[in-house]
Amino acid sequence: MKVRVTVMLKDGVLDPQGKAVEHALHVLDFKNVGDVRIGRVIDLELSESDPARAIVQANEMARALLANLVIEDFAAEVVEE
Amino acid sequence: MKVRVTVMLKDGVLDPQGKAVEHALHVLDFKNVGDVRIGRVIDLELSESDPARAIVQANEMARALLANLVIEDFAAEVVEE
Repeated sequence: MKVRVTVMLKDGVLDPQGKAVEHALHVLDFKNVGDVRIGRVIDLELSESDPARAIVQANEMARALLANLVIEDFAAEVVEE
Repeated sequence: MKVRVTVMLKDGVLDPQGKAVEHALHVLDFKNVGDVRIGRVIDLELSESDPARAIVQANEMARALLANLVIEDFAAEVVEE
């Protein structure tokens, strides 16, 4: 089962990478872009058949390693049974 | 309208960062993790009210700047009206 963990900076935490992309998009003439925030996704292939248990495990992994909970939020979802 | 662009390495392209995370998860005793792939998400705030047009614009931005089409695939989806 494939589980996707999405990690984003918390609201209010400055995102310099997002600001740089926002600026670059404006330079490229994409004028209707406002705020840009950048995060990461971690796709985990788990040997687990129960979706609920897979999510629980992915959450544990996120808390232990994948996300920095001081400045980041995360969410896990099953993307492929 | 908020559009999320997800950029992942194409299948078959080596993902050393994913391999490192996979190894770290095994060290942390998460034994049922198989393949790990890492990508990024770009959340764009667009001043656009039509979801279809917003997706078209996000795709253009992905092709112009956000993704490296030689080694990466991307997908855009509306996450907030």
